[in-house]
Amino acid sequence: MNVELLAITPDAEKLIEAAGRTAYLSFGKQGAGSEKKFIRMLLKNRHHSVLEHASATFRITGVSRAMTHQLVRHRLCSFTQQSQRYVNEKDFGFVEPESVRKNEAAHRLYIDFIGAAKKVYVSLQDMGIMNEDARFVLPNAVESQIVVSANFREWRHIIELRGKHGSQWEVRKVVLEILRLLKKQVPAAFEDLEIDDDDSKVGKAEDF
Amino acid sequence: MNVELLAITPDAEKLIEAAGRTAYLSFGKQGAGSEKKFIRMLLKNRHHSVLEHASATFRITGVSRAMTHQLVRHRLCSFTQQSQRYVNEKDFGFVEPESVRKNEAAHRLYIDFIGAAKKVYVSLQDMGIMNEDARFVLPNAVESQIVVSANFREWRHIIELRGKHGSQWEVRKVVLEILRLLKKQVPAAFEDLEIDDDDSKVGKAEDF
Amino acid sequence: MNVELLAITPDAEKLIEAAGRTAYLSFGKQGAGSEKKFIRMLLKNRHHSVLEHASATFRITGVSRAMTHQLVRHRLCSFTQQSQRYVNEKDFGFVEPESVRKNEAAHRLYIDFIGAAKKVYVSLQDMGIMNEDARFVLPNAVESQIVVSANFREWRHIIELRGKHGSQWEVRKVVLEILRLLKKQVPAAFEDLEIDDDDSKVGKAEDF
Amino acid sequence: MNVELLAITPDAEKLIEAAGRTAYLSFGKQGAGSEKKFIRMLLKNRHHSVLEHASATFRITGVSRAMTHQLVRHRLCSFTQQSQRYVNEKDFGFVEPESVRKNEAAHRLYIDFIGAAKKVYVSLQDMGIMNEDARFVLPNAVESQIVVSANFREWRHIIELRGKHGSQWEVRKVVLEILRLLKKQVPAAFEDLEIDDDDSKVGKAEDF
Repeated sequence: MNVELLAITPDAEKLIEAAGRTAYLSFGKQGAGSEKKFIRMLLKNRHHSVLEHASATFRITGVSRAMTHQLVRHRLCSFTQQSQRYVNEKDFGFVEPESVRKNEAAHRLYIDFIGAAKKVYVSLQDMGIMNEDARFVLPNAVESQIVVSANFREWRHIIELRGKHGSQWEVRKVVLEILRLLKKQVPAAFEDLEIDDDDSKVGKAEDF
Repeated sequence: MNVELLAITPDAEKLIEAAGRTAYLSFGKQGAGSEKKFIRMLLKNRHHSVLEHASATFRITGVSRAMTHQLVRHRLCSFTQQSQRYVNEKDFGFVEPESVRKNEAAHRLYIDFIGAAKKVYVSLQDMGIMNEDARFVLPNAVESQIVVSANFREWRHIIELRGKHGSQWEVRKVVLEILRLLKKQVPAAFEDLEIDDDDSKVGKAEDF
Repeated sequence: MNVELLAITPDAEKLIEAAGRTAYLSFGKQGAGSEKKFIRMLLKNRHHSVLEHASATFRITGVSRAMTHQLVRHRLCSFTQQSQRYVNEKDFGFVEPESVRKNEAAHRLYIDFIGAAKKVYVSLQDMGIMNEDARFVLPNAVESQIVVSANFREWRHIIELRGKHGSQWEVRKVVLEILRLLKKQVPAAFEDLEIDDDDSKVGKAEDF
Repeated sequence: MNVELLAITPDAEKLIEAAGRTAYLSFGKQGAGSEKKFIRMLLKNRHHSVLEHASATFRITGVSRAMTHQLVRHRLCSFTQQSQRYVNEKDFGFVEPESVRKNEAAHRLYIDFIGAAKKVYVSLQDMGIMNEDARFVLPNAVESQIVVSANFREWRHIIELRGKHGSQWEVRKVVLEILRLLKKQVPAAFEDLEIDDDDSKVGKAEDF
């Protein structure tokens, strides 16, 4: 699994302040560092709509189709995903859940099965079956690649929802990584979302 | 594959007229059958937003996860889908593409592989792997069930886009069936979308 | 101000249960009254997406353009509104805020001004100015009519946000009336949203 | 009326190509200028979803509330608008339609009325009426300021819809200006949308 930041709104925090101050025409209050205070105020008062003016795009690779099937359920995002209809998947990579990898017998069974699936896929191709139909044998484990764009309000929503305990481990890992990258770029806009490294989950900062 | 209409806005065509006439306050023109003429006018003038006031919900069963992964990319819909994290899939059904079924060798290989996948899935369960991780071996072919709600404008968009030549056969089959059901219920709102049975696709009525 | 229910999904609570049970394939649990328990469970666990399968359409009349300008900011709704570009507004009705009506001097000034605005509007028409340009003199007070459709999840969101203290009084009055109508039709889906009649606001039931 | 570009995705055309090539894993085809060809291909094949990965934010000032009431009907945008509830509008600016300005009698009537509206607004304030209620007398002509963010696909949709003949002149003027700014920044993504300066409208390039 890998997450790469492809693009982010330049000077996003300053932009959020400049946009947000439009409601009150309070532009005179802008100054060095004022964007941090302004965004903190927005978060406290739940004026999240102003965060929509900035957005970020990530490339997510090495994730299973099980994971992407969940991810694309978020509807306020834009997605471009590797197509199993068009891409020849004869050399596909795959994801192995930790619970399987740690279980010797399960691990061997899993690896053998993935190998078998690859052979069947290629055999179907050899028999003249098109990729779009041969892919019916590809397991959920098969790796996919997806580019996702969303505005900051939506990223906050996705991270909160998918970063908490109980959400699927693969999605959780991805959104934790996205949160790490966003915190580096635009700390104020994600300040109240804390990463609990022991427990690999996201929580709201208590004292925020 | 099966498509069942679960719910539709009552008197949808009359509702669309009643809502649409609000723009011009032209309520006096309502009468017997006037809704058909009104909707035809909306379609001709591409005032599609008025069609959003009516909606329909379908249950789609016996489709592959390959198909649902495409379907859920439509963002102006509401979905509830059978969860592979929670449902025990040990007796899963599966979809077989026609190109495979018609190819004797491919068919046998396919059926054997599906049987093997089921065994591996159950073995992983027996080894203590949770459903949410065991499902990584489930192929795209595994049947899923999904309930989808959308307004008429969005159904028209989905049907036009996914009903045409070049779209994946399974999605196309589903939207053709949805169009048949909608035409029975609310003929005027889908009148210009024609089903070409020879070619299993949707087209715009030329003379509309 | 008047709010009229134009349409609602038939057997909405039963539909929500039927859709929601798809996730777990737990259809066997459906029975007399089971939909109420099911929806209560959805609300407690914040599985609000299932509520999206049902929707309701209202006609709102006698509200100001100040109010509708706020209302149409909700983006997961469908709107059809009386058009000031096309409708001749020479006999427009108007909304008067209570704070103005209760203040004798303000009230007289307000009524005179509304009368003057009407005269100027008609004079501009008489001078050959089109409605779409004459309307530039129409005040926010001028009455409008709007038809709004949204699914239950979105109605809950709008009612919670706009029904609370601090939101504009006209929007608050409208969403309180919408909540009253929805509680009659689908009590379980709006059970935890309580109307405080003394204070004309919506709150969450504490013990829910 | 003034339109200012506040922010745009950096290297937007390159980003669109990088995202779009994910579907086919055709990254090897990237090179000097390849993004232009790629985007042209997207537009021809109507693969507009890839354009969603880039977005732009504009500040629009000096427009009427009549205009903004239309603009905010676009639902795939993010808006922050000057609030008439909170901002003291005692010194409001106003928009005058050309049809009024060119008509001597209409012009005088209009200017006098705007002056009267300002006086009434201030008098209501002096009588203790809060801004949020005093604003009921403010005419549509009163200037507003709004910040709008949207992705390129949505900007294309808004520009096509609102830029054509028959759309309200004020919205048309704004989207023409937005198109001019976007063409400077990201020519390929808006290449097929042509500005007809004689007729102040947008059209599709015939030979595209």
